[in-house]
Amino acid sequence: MATCDAVLQSLAKLSLSPRTVSHESVSDNKAWAAALASTKDAVFEMTKTLILKPKTAKTAAATPVVVIALESTETPVPALGKKLSLKDCRFANEELLQTTFGVNKDQVSPFALSNVADLSLVHLVVDSAILALPATTLLAFHPSAADKTVFVTVDQLKAYFKSISKDFVEIDFKAIATAAPAAAAASGSKPAAKPAPKKKAAAEIEASADEVHQMGIEAKKEVDFPKWYQQVLTKSEMLEYYDVSGCYILRPLAYNVWKEITNFFDAAITEMGVEDTYFPMFVSNRVLQREKDHIEGFAPEVAWVTKAGSADLEEPIAIRPTSETVMYPYFSKWIRSYRDLPFRINQWCSVVRWEFKNPQPFLRTREFLWQEGHTAHLTLEGADKEVREILDLYEQVYTDLLAVPVVKGVKSEKERFAGGYYTTTVEGFIPTTGRAIQGGTSHCLGQNFSKMFNIVIEDPSAPANATEEAKKLHVWQNSWGLSTRTIGVMVMIHSDDKGLVLPPRVALIQTVVVPCGLNVKTTKEESDDIYDRCQAVAARLKKTGLKSKADLRENYSPGFKFNHWEIRGVPLRLELGPMDIKKNQVTAVRRDTGAKFAIPLDNLEKGVRDALDTIQNDMFQKAKAKMDSSIVRINKWEDFVRTLNDKKLCLIPWCDRIACEDDIKERSARVATEGEEEDDRAPSMGAKSLCKPFVQPTENPIVPGVTKCIACDHDAKHFMLFGRSY
Amino acid sequence: MATCDAVLQSLAKLSLSPRTVSHESVSDNKAWAAALASTKDAVFEMTKTLILKPKTAKTAAATPVVVIALESTETPVPALGKKLSLKDCRFANEELLQTTFGVNKDQVSPFALSNVADLSLVHLVVDSAILALPATTLLAFHPSAADKTVFVTVDQLKAYFKSISKDFVEIDFKAIATAAPAAAAASGSKPAAKPAPKKKAAAEIEASADEVHQMGIEAKKEVDFPKWYQQVLTKSEMLEYYDVSGCYILRPLAYNVWKEITNFFDAAITEMGVEDTYFPMFVSNRVLQREKDHIEGFAPEVAWVTKAGSADLEEPIAIRPTSETVMYPYFSKWIRSYRDLPFRINQWCSVVRWEFKNPQPFLRTREFLWQEGHTAHLTLEGADKEVREILDLYEQVYTDLLAVPVVKGVKSEKERFAGGYYTTTVEGFIPTTGRAIQGGTSHCLGQNFSKMFNIVIEDPSAPANATEEAKKLHVWQNSWGLSTRTIGVMVMIHSDDKGLVLPPRVALIQTVVVPCGLNVKTTKEESDDIYDRCQAVAARLKKTGLKSKADLRENYSPGFKFNHWEIRGVPLRLELGPMDIKKNQVTAVRRDTGAKFAIPLDNLEKGVRDALDTIQNDMFQKAKAKMDSSIVRINKWEDFVRTLNDKKLCLIPWCDRIACEDDIKERSARVATEGEEEDDRAPSMGAKSLCKPFVQPTENPIVPGVTKCIACDHDAKHFMLFGRSY
Repeated sequence: MATCDAVLQSLAKLSLSPRTVSHESVSDNKAWAAALASTKDAVFEMTKTLILKPKTAKTAAATPVVVIALESTETPVPALGKKLSLKDCRFANEELLQTTFGVNKDQVSPFALSNVADLSLVHLVVDSAILALPATTLLAFHPSAADKTVFVTVDQLKAYFKSISKDFVEIDFKAIATAAPAAAAASGSKPAAKPAPKKKAAAEIEASADEVHQMGIEAKKEVDFPKWYQQVLTKSEMLEYYDVSGCYILRPLAYNVWKEITNFFDAAITEMGVEDTYFPMFVSNRVLQREKDHIEGFAPEVAWVTKAGSADLEEPIAIRPTSETVMYPYFSKWIRSYRDLPFRINQWCSVVRWEFKNPQPFLRTREFLWQEGHTAHLTLEGADKEVREILDLYEQVYTDLLAVPVVKGVKSEKERFAGGYYTTTVEGFIPTTGRAIQGGTSHCLGQNFSKMFNIVIEDPSAPANATEEAKKLHVWQNSWGLSTRTIGVMVMIHSDDKGLVLPPRVALIQTVVVPCGLNVKTTKEESDDIYDRCQAVAARLKKTGLKSKADLRENYSPGFKFNHWEIRGVPLRLELGPMDIKKNQVTAVRRDTGAKFAIPLDNLEKGVRDALDTIQNDMFQKAKAKMDSSIVRINKWEDFVRTLNDKKLCLIPWCDRIACEDDIKERSARVATEGEEEDDRAPSMGAKSLCKPFVQPTENPIVPGVTKCIACDHDAKHFMLFGRSY
Repeated sequence: MATCDAVLQSLAKLSLSPRTVSHESVSDNKAWAAALASTKDAVFEMTKTLILKPKTAKTAAATPVVVIALESTETPVPALGKKLSLKDCRFANEELLQTTFGVNKDQVSPFALSNVADLSLVHLVVDSAILALPATTLLAFHPSAADKTVFVTVDQLKAYFKSISKDFVEIDFKAIATAAPAAAAASGSKPAAKPAPKKKAAAEIEASADEVHQMGIEAKKEVDFPKWYQQVLTKSEMLEYYDVSGCYILRPLAYNVWKEITNFFDAAITEMGVEDTYFPMFVSNRVLQREKDHIEGFAPEVAWVTKAGSADLEEPIAIRPTSETVMYPYFSKWIRSYRDLPFRINQWCSVVRWEFKNPQPFLRTREFLWQEGHTAHLTLEGADKEVREILDLYEQVYTDLLAVPVVKGVKSEKERFAGGYYTTTVEGFIPTTGRAIQGGTSHCLGQNFSKMFNIVIEDPSAPANATEEAKKLHVWQNSWGLSTRTIGVMVMIHSDDKGLVLPPRVALIQTVVVPCGLNVKTTKEESDDIYDRCQAVAARLKKTGLKSKADLRENYSPGFKFNHWEIRGVPLRLELGPMDIKKNQVTAVRRDTGAKFAIPLDNLEKGVRDALDTIQNDMFQKAKAKMDSSIVRINKWEDFVRTLNDKKLCLIPWCDRIACEDDIKERSARVATEGEEEDDRAPSMGAKSLCKPFVQPTENPIVPGVTKCIACDHDAKHFMLFGRSY
């Protein structure tokens, strides 16, 4: 049997000593990628090994096909079968794996070939994309079990085949996939898709149920939320995984959400008098270290540039994790008088925080986009006012653009920004996991940084005979930031088992027009007429500023197109067929509810605009109702953990003490396993304080000296929102 | 005498062994910063040492003041004198420096104190900003000559004072500067400014000629262009120097230019069907290396992240210098069929190229902002068409927004983008230096990258019976980029000895309204009335979308305000005084020409808008006329270098051979010093080919086989533009 050791031994005979790593046992390739990504930054290509079985006479020996391909390569089984002239290729069953290859499905790797008695019966296929890689590229394989990974180079893989005297066939999967455009890709452990349907006489092909299934989201939101989230992001083409761990590609669908947020927020702060700037992404170590409390919060995650070209830098230079220490030395230079106040700048940029915890798209990434505002004020009152104005804008980004409800409030001392005076927050809520998420923070920094960076002016209200020292006034500062995390929150809340659901205000395409009702009897003229009308509808909408598109692709069925745009979250689909033409209407279908209704063509623009407004509003109201019903006022500790486990947040009378907060966290962890990673699959971490909501309950309020903290029985100061959180 | 060696010896006695570096002899602090910046990445604070002489009785001994301050600290001499109760402080003359300190003005440093016979006569002043630094911060001093720099820590400096038994006085210059807001800063070797004028009874102070001079640009554009450029950028508050060499802060005035460019260009490419994305800034080494020709062009300048927190990364990760190799592996995944073409994405981001040549704001920086478009097409024709469309948009950015003329054309083989097929360019021209500058490039990459990254589709026009290989079609690709370099070109062309001149379309403030004509006899009511009217004028303009501001600061004279806004490049100033009110008008003054004219208040909005349009147009026409007259058609080699020396560009019949281009460069270098840095101060480098202009001369055109290349006498193929360039 090709155990891991045996594999390594056989490779050692070839003078190969590949690196092997152990990790959690993984059940699919995404989990595998995550397991490898979280441990190391090694550069390698993920692979998959498929074992297929073509149909053979019952009495004949099986002639299995072993396919070794890049994980990213789509491997359409029917097309491959056709290409190899093998009949009715399907995934091999467990029995064949065991009897012929001596492995179970978690142990499938190229090295299982060592166990095959008669290799002449086996077809060995290698993805041309692997062979196109440089010879020294590392490939990752499971050598023998789901909890181990071995890295061998392309050359070593070839040497292995040579050592077992097995020739392979090179297959260009992209070419064979292109030959069958609607053919579905076979993924790791799924049954093979049916062969691609033949082109019909009419310009229409019905997508099979299988195809639609393969295109779609394979995980259910309520069952496997992490997998569902990954699939919604990638299959909607919002996001692509990237070969540097913790970094992701924002594709147009996602970037457009960020653009809409940028446009809204930048216009609002410009109106307030904030000016946009751009500071360098690099910070010298000396400057970074200047504010100790602050840097302690960030130091473990700072990325350092130490080389340029082939030369070592004299001193390492940091990439900004945030820009307080980058900017404030210059505030000290620029702010000379009370006339310079308020001094307000903002920048749109990316920052880097080299997290070592499991990365998660949008929520925890090593590089992310954000805006950071930094301002200085003459008085605390001036700073306070701005902190709230900005927080209100963050709330509007969530409620008005992303249709996401939030709770505004103040963070506890424990959760406050490192080096700041107080922190306000908008807290979001993901019902499926019952976890809260910090949506954006607006900090008052007080005078801590201005003292550290000597940002002073002469106090305009100081008496004329005061000493120089007495006249010196340290400015009051704020900083506030909102990041692309917003996008992740939006996706988690609204999307469903069919894929992405986008609020109309941030959708790259708001309506898509699909020609329908064509069949084999449709004449060319009729078909052309419908296509022209679809084009005209899209053009009319576009003219009034609605983001519209007509999907006029031929060779795709309406069903295929519906699915294509549903998974991508287009808020409103317009169908146009012969019956609609007869009635002078389009048939509209809402993405969020599936509701179907007619819009008269005479009222097209207004009808569509109203429908989009309704969708935007309904999406918000639905999420709001869910959040409201998930915030539970708790009056005794016994109900606290039960409510968390019920995927809800707890609003409690609280004493406002750090010791109590630590205690609550510890006592509310469902399974307090030492050192365990807190993630979606085990939402068992202790509850954190989320915020002291600005809006405190008026019914049955805190009575000073009477109402007690439900956790420790000290006097309660106010109501505090607690929950498990991201 | 405190020679460098003597200084080091005396420090060695204190067990100090500071690092000393030698460099070019420098005459001012900017040059000093540049000399230090270009050699090392050491982190240190620049300092200045001033020696002042208060007025004493003629017969009494001089009691000089030695001031040691951060270079960035403004050190107002009159305010300092007042603070120390010393009469009429001025900069010491050479005689005092020689007789008392034993140094000339290039040798002034704290260590000159070692040469003073009677230290009790000397006042020693240390900037509190130095004392606020961490004790181990390195300070840079000229120990004994302009071509050496010694680095000592704050602690070592204090130890030195102790070793010579000299106490010092700590002065907070910012506090004393704030006490006298309009007081001018004393800079290194300038005469002291007059004491700040006393506050007058009326709310107005006349700025003295001296103050205005100190606020203004000290270098003439035609005399010392590099210094002029630096001062225009910093004194206009467009840009601030930063403590990481080669990086600069873009302040709102500069960033707004970039925003206007972004808005214009992004709207145009969106209309074309290009979609915005964001790819990570990090690239793995493996991916970066994949295209060899391409990476060779960038490798020496790539910055590498090797550490995160305190942990070494397993493999260094590069910061993108450009994103071809970042993006194209994903193109290969995303582009599956001819239906996916054209595939067009763009991103707005910053890239890093760790240049080791002298950095120059906007023109050569280690981090810069840009957009990079990357597209794939079915045919070369499709790619060609887009290359030109994008180049036309780049031209419009220059001509329509920045009022800068450019020449469009194709780069020579030598100057083509690394790994590309052909490169088109918009070339700008800086008349003051006679140098051309590449303004933006639109590359056709051909199929080179698509072959390297396996970006293929099935050829839709291939015959059905063709082999898989024959059906495979590599896509045709383009990439195109425009950076913040645009801003530098704009500043160099339009600005003048008074400071920045901004084209109205990219100005953060287009008009400023200044109350005028107030004097000691003006009543409070009259004054309030004028201020209100100024405010109203600004509000009216703002309402129609014109970026306007009323400068209602009290305690500043109109002259001071004129100067303030002139240096910042505001295109149109509106003056409003009692005479204007009587005539129901504002008096408008153009920044570009200084021309003065009245605009009736009844016609305010249109009048201002027309004036701004005229300014925009005139600025372009003026620059265009200058460029046109600086492109000289050359018919014999003898005229070539003479024309370059005359600060012009040469349009020549050319053979289009690399060998000839190399030869031209060599033969046209005025002073061909081996290894010499090519920079503004020595515009003696050889000429490069700039482009083959799309518009070729029609008069006396190339006659194939007859017209010869003027450099080598081979047959000329076409006209080529040559010039010295940035």
